[in-house]
Amino acid sequence: MHRIAVIPGDGIGPEVIEQALLVLDKVSSKFGVKFEYIFLDAGGCAIDKYGVPIREEDLELVKKCEATLLGAVGGPKWDNLPGNLRPEQALLKLRGGLKVYANLRPAVLYDELKDSSPLKKEIVDKGIDILVVRELIGGMYFGPKGREIRNGQEVAYDTEIYSVSEIERIARVAFEAARKRRKKVTSVDKANILESSRLWREVVNRVAKNYPDVELAHMYVDNASMQLVKDPSQFDVILTSNMFGDILSDEASMIVGSIGMLASASLGDNKIGLYEPIHGTAPDIAGQDLANPIATILSAAMMLRYSFDMEDAAKAIENAVKIALKEGYRTRDIYTENCKLVGTKQMGKIICENI
Amino acid sequence: MHRIAVIPGDGIGPEVIEQALLVLDKVSSKFGVKFEYIFLDAGGCAIDKYGVPIREEDLELVKKCEATLLGAVGGPKWDNLPGNLRPEQALLKLRGGLKVYANLRPAVLYDELKDSSPLKKEIVDKGIDILVVRELIGGMYFGPKGREIRNGQEVAYDTEIYSVSEIERIARVAFEAARKRRKKVTSVDKANILESSRLWREVVNRVAKNYPDVELAHMYVDNASMQLVKDPSQFDVILTSNMFGDILSDEASMIVGSIGMLASASLGDNKIGLYEPIHGTAPDIAGQDLANPIATILSAAMMLRYSFDMEDAAKAIENAVKIALKEGYRTRDIYTENCKLVGTKQMGKIICENI
Ligand SMILES: CC(C)[C@H](C(=O)O)[C@@H](O)C(=O)O
Ligand SMILES: CC(C)[C@H](C(=O)O)[C@@H](O)C(=O)O
Repeated sequence: MHRIAVIPGDGIGPEVIEQALLVLDKVSSKFGVKFEYIFLDAGGCAIDKYGVPIREEDLELVKKCEATLLGAVGGPKWDNLPGNLRPEQALLKLRGGLKVYANLRPAVLYDELKDSSPLKKEIVDKGIDILVVRELIGGMYFGPKGREIRNGQEVAYDTEIYSVSEIERIARVAFEAARKRRKKVTSVDKANILESSRLWREVVNRVAKNYPDVELAHMYVDNASMQLVKDPSQFDVILTSNMFGDILSDEASMIVGSIGMLASASLGDNKIGLYEPIHGTAPDIAGQDLANPIATILSAAMMLRYSFDMEDAAKAIENAVKIALKEGYRTRDIYTENCKLVGTKQMGKIICENI
Repeated sequence: MHRIAVIPGDGIGPEVIEQALLVLDKVSSKFGVKFEYIFLDAGGCAIDKYGVPIREEDLELVKKCEATLLGAVGGPKWDNLPGNLRPEQALLKLRGGLKVYANLRPAVLYDELKDSSPLKKEIVDKGIDILVVRELIGGMYFGPKGREIRNGQEVAYDTEIYSVSEIERIARVAFEAARKRRKKVTSVDKANILESSRLWREVVNRVAKNYPDVELAHMYVDNASMQLVKDPSQFDVILTSNMFGDILSDEASMIVGSIGMLASASLGDNKIGLYEPIHGTAPDIAGQDLANPIATILSAAMMLRYSFDMEDAAKAIENAVKIALKEGYRTRDIYTENCKLVGTKQMGKIICENI
């Protein structure tokens, strides 16, 4: 019996979560395992209901679960609230509260979806299979920040700060992951300018000594943003900070052409994890059975893999998704000529049937 | 008579500068204007000669010139020196010393070079003509930074800090530039997380009130890194901070497929300017007559435009470059089948002849 906190969130969140839960139900019966779901509000809906992005008691509840499955939070409706009252604060509180410091974002190009990539055929034909390992609870997101008067005028600041142990633990995650993949880590920083990056590079070099079987390269973040477009096949694992990871993982997700397909896992110690699709709340298509549930379904697969050690079940879900694509089923976001257009629910159903 | 500080720098720097100076000589005779060149060392070559990336007396000399034309600085040879002794410090000292707060980086897709873009034809066919306006002497590059022991372990930090007046002046540059273009500014920040971005957004909104004829949109930096690949035609002027601008301008330069073509101008008040190609020192091809001199030649054109008010001469250079491309001349980096391959010197010569 596994206890899962389920946070549908805003926009298309509830719809995609619904399909992921149906998939988990199927896994439950197929693999003889029980899941208990604890439903919670966070994000815009929690602001509307309780006046805060996430209630403290709900955060405590989440901490008592083995894993959290989240849809998406936010939307234009709440965009003009003060910083600490925005939906995104729920995400930060969840990440920080659960201490999930390692954000894993796989960007994989599916053969069937090659045409959706904005990159040229010569480039995508070389294949794209990148795992971005982003530090998630440090750096500018959580460092000292504020707004004040200095020398008679208003200034605002954020602090990019990293400690040795913060860098060590995320570097280890990247090297361990690379070992199970193509054995290459590209650490991205801005060590020619930033002190924090210089420490980052030193510590990564030190950690690398324990992984002589893994190749390590360092790359400046500006160059990385170019290389991702020029030749993404050169990357296996990208290891980077919270802020740079935010930018590069979104870029990586765009080049595979299907942000509706991309899952993520945020891991702490002791197998605790927060799982969510990379996409946002897409308010323009919410409630219309148009959203692609695959990213959330694949996030559930990551949950089975990383938090519950159910590799077989995770593979079964991933395989079921591949079959659905092979059979030509497509939600609107990934639709191309001669495919079968389906809605959120039908896509979920087809994947369930393939498990 | 205009006084120009000329800094060839490292790697391919001297070769591309040589061609830019030949072009300026041609302009000089054609347009009846005299240029005086003050040659200075900065970057790796200055470290080798003087032990510092740029000497204080040279910095003072630069400040006495109307404009500075720079090749490129840096290289692996100097990559392991301590922070304050790296070639890049010369750039920071020049930028900071000259107070050139506005970095203009045009990313333009030349019709003749469409095939070099990594993006699909459908996307590039819509055209790419972006001007990145990057704040250049503030933010994390120049904010308080350091390394120290806290709670018994080493930490390192950099501070992203902006004041109202810093944001105001760069915003004004962006809106003024947009007025002369397609009248749209996209301000890129991370206002859902960063205090500095929230102030940025507020101030930009305030400045925008003086430019009712210019459309303003705000975009989060992670989204911007996606949109640049998905549909770059949506952008006219991108206004952003030093750090985000570093990343996004490189991404923008890659999608037009020809970093060897891209110029930049860094402007302060009173027409003072620092002009340099966007590309680096390319040590692997240095000294072999292989480098593309066009980015530096176009930087010289920007110098004529912004520092010397010589719009006609700037246009003449830009036109001469276009003719060379139309006639099929290509350096190796932009070569495609059926074109005429030329070296650095010959490309410079052809452009001179076209003026
Ligand atoms: C919504 C936002 C706070 C968040 C982030 O910046 O981390 C998102 O962009 C992400 O990448 O998960
Ligand atoms: C060389 C480096 C310091 C510089 C920067 O980061 O500004 C470069 O990347 C640039 O964009 O001009």
